[in-house]
Amino acid sequence: MSWQDKILESVRETKKASFNAAGFSSGLKNLFLGRLAVNLDMQRKDIIRANQRDLERCGRSGLSGAFMDRLALTEKRIDKMAEAVNTVRLLPDPVGAKIWETRRPNGLLIERVRVPIGVIGIIYESRPDVTVEAAILCVKSGNCVILRGGREARHSNRMLVSILRKSLLEVSMPEEMVNLVSTGGRRAVRYLLSMSALIDLVIPRGGESLIETVVRNSRIPVIKHYKGVCHTYVDSDADMEMAIKVAVNAKVQRPSTCNATETLLVHRDIAPDFLPKIAEIFRSEKVEIRGCGETRKILPGIKPAVDSDWSTEYLDLVISVKVVDSADEAVEHINMHGTRHSESIITGNRDTAANFLSRVDAAAVFHNASTRFTDGGEFGLGAEIGISTDKIHARGPMGLEELTTYKYVIHGNGQTRQ
Amino acid sequence: MSWQDKILESVRETKKASFNAAGFSSGLKNLFLGRLAVNLDMQRKDIIRANQRDLERCGRSGLSGAFMDRLALTEKRIDKMAEAVNTVRLLPDPVGAKIWETRRPNGLLIERVRVPIGVIGIIYESRPDVTVEAAILCVKSGNCVILRGGREARHSNRMLVSILRKSLLEVSMPEEMVNLVSTGGRRAVRYLLSMSALIDLVIPRGGESLIETVVRNSRIPVIKHYKGVCHTYVDSDADMEMAIKVAVNAKVQRPSTCNATETLLVHRDIAPDFLPKIAEIFRSEKVEIRGCGETRKILPGIKPAVDSDWSTEYLDLVISVKVVDSADEAVEHINMHGTRHSESIITGNRDTAANFLSRVDAAAVFHNASTRFTDGGEFGLGAEIGISTDKIHARGPMGLEELTTYKYVIHGNGQTRQ
Repeated sequence: MSWQDKILESVRETKKASFNAAGFSSGLKNLFLGRLAVNLDMQRKDIIRANQRDLERCGRSGLSGAFMDRLALTEKRIDKMAEAVNTVRLLPDPVGAKIWETRRPNGLLIERVRVPIGVIGIIYESRPDVTVEAAILCVKSGNCVILRGGREARHSNRMLVSILRKSLLEVSMPEEMVNLVSTGGRRAVRYLLSMSALIDLVIPRGGESLIETVVRNSRIPVIKHYKGVCHTYVDSDADMEMAIKVAVNAKVQRPSTCNATETLLVHRDIAPDFLPKIAEIFRSEKVEIRGCGETRKILPGIKPAVDSDWSTEYLDLVISVKVVDSADEAVEHINMHGTRHSESIITGNRDTAANFLSRVDAAAVFHNASTRFTDGGEFGLGAEIGISTDKIHARGPMGLEELTTYKYVIHGNGQTRQ
Repeated sequence: MSWQDKILESVRETKKASFNAAGFSSGLKNLFLGRLAVNLDMQRKDIIRANQRDLERCGRSGLSGAFMDRLALTEKRIDKMAEAVNTVRLLPDPVGAKIWETRRPNGLLIERVRVPIGVIGIIYESRPDVTVEAAILCVKSGNCVILRGGREARHSNRMLVSILRKSLLEVSMPEEMVNLVSTGGRRAVRYLLSMSALIDLVIPRGGESLIETVVRNSRIPVIKHYKGVCHTYVDSDADMEMAIKVAVNAKVQRPSTCNATETLLVHRDIAPDFLPKIAEIFRSEKVEIRGCGETRKILPGIKPAVDSDWSTEYLDLVISVKVVDSADEAVEHINMHGTRHSESIITGNRDTAANFLSRVDAAAVFHNASTRFTDGGEFGLGAEIGISTDKIHARGPMGLEELTTYKYVIHGNGQTRQ
């Protein structure tokens, strides 16, 4: 059998399983999650051994330390996995909820009911913890999942998927609900992305180039979790102390995340007071500042920001700073350079804030709070499969509810259309 | 200026307009719709004259009668357009609604607010009435629209768009909200489909080949209004009279629509009674029957159905008929051959119905009613831009609410993340 036929056959099996999965009860799905947590714990030696094989192979190829770190499954990471499984088990099941209903004059009862999306393809890189994270969110929301992880993690992924499938079988759910596609090389990804009749949604998880490859080749709808070039705008009416505290938090609390602020916009009137104060803190926090011309007049000696700085996601202790003439200029800068992720305004003026919140186009817009709060947990939504920077279907933190769609269920007693 | 630069500049203008459009009040948008209805009425001679130029040009090229009919704008069609404008004016505005809110332990108030999608691209064929229909739904939902109609309708579209833009200006809305792209030939469509930073959603409206071209080339999310291969399944527990009435309605009431039934599935136990009765009515309604082997044993003399019949959207007075052993076989047939549009079961058995409604994967599933009801108006949702056969973002009738997305608006007083 060619690799294409192999993949086609296995994806078809998953599609078939998805029709029944839509009807699985919350109790059954939670039973699976309970078994999974136990099995991950019991088979931790197997997981670590499989992971060791991947690590050794990659070590010989001389891959970077950061890469090896993402690939590694330690005892602690396995604990975290099992913990995540239990967290998802306790989340409410969105499937089956009646979202809306209406009784029509002709007697038809029309209900809009939440249902799983069907088959979700996850295309990711070297992090094997994504395997479990994605699978549990998909299964809990009644979906089936096609996993396509990086070649470098293949032994780890095979072991984790075998534990996932074993746990499904233990509660009499079809193991085809979780399907790891590990044959076919790069061409396999393209092949998967052409299967619009069998896979309902693709979520790429990884860097820019992975996401772009997926978007370019997919005939299946894609939801992108793209980079975050987030801004904090300090208005002329900002409380100085609050502005410093929030802006510093947005940059330094965890600079490697997509919701960290990359550019600080500062109103001309407050800049001469504000910039020297925050620059001092940034210096002590080892943050490199790159400024526009106006910023450099106030903070001589800092590096100049070049054009590309305004659209760079540093993911590091670097911040670009621009002085603007008005809140409107800040809004325009953000709508031009932002990635529709998280944007914040610090101001005491309600009208200025309202205008900013309405006109800035982003998944999350903040008034007097740190951009770092964009997160399923912080929003009280539970676990998330990522933060969508798309505007279609799911925006911002993408949790269980965002992994569902709806269908219209219509009850009649013989109605015909006139 | 090259055609690329021209298009890029005009789409950028529309993108800019979209940031303000998100904040336009319902009153203002309705004022525009009021002006538009008046202007369409007042300029009907101009519209008909422009349309005449298109018709003459196409007449000379010897295009088919059906094509010419779709292209033609008669007095009656202009009346219908103005009527549609008034209908949309009276619909509730979905923008600005607070969908959800939560107060977090740290004091953050998190709101999920309905907002426009932004810039929507509509790619369509020769029907100039789509121009007005799409534009009014987009503007009412706070969106801007890039219209790319068929070359054959270009004079009609230019005239209609000039009336749309004039009506926008009359109420001080930016005319760039409605943007007709008519240069650049086929390459222009590809160019538009690459503009993922400027256009947020693409909706193709037209035949299969148009939709496939768009899906293949787009880097922008696409919502498909694809063909409808809809089924009516007559169960062994069906009320015979109801089954005949509903199935006949589903086929003959308006066979050219996507929600008309194309395949009749009949339970083995009821087939010998049911099929001769419905065949008689189909004969009198001039419906051609194509049957499976079992069907032909009961109805000798009818045409045999070949494999391709099970996935054909006839859009005509033709129906394929298949005898099945069980409701489960009907579900499997539908999930294999259906296009996720509208599917109906006729049965008196509640359990059989519940199983069918849950397991059939379609935008609309009916119990004891005609598939012909899948329609924004019939569902009480108001005007629709089409019926989505996708599962992402919008499913089934796509009206004003489905032309929106949401954003998280977070109100703080200096919160930082720990």
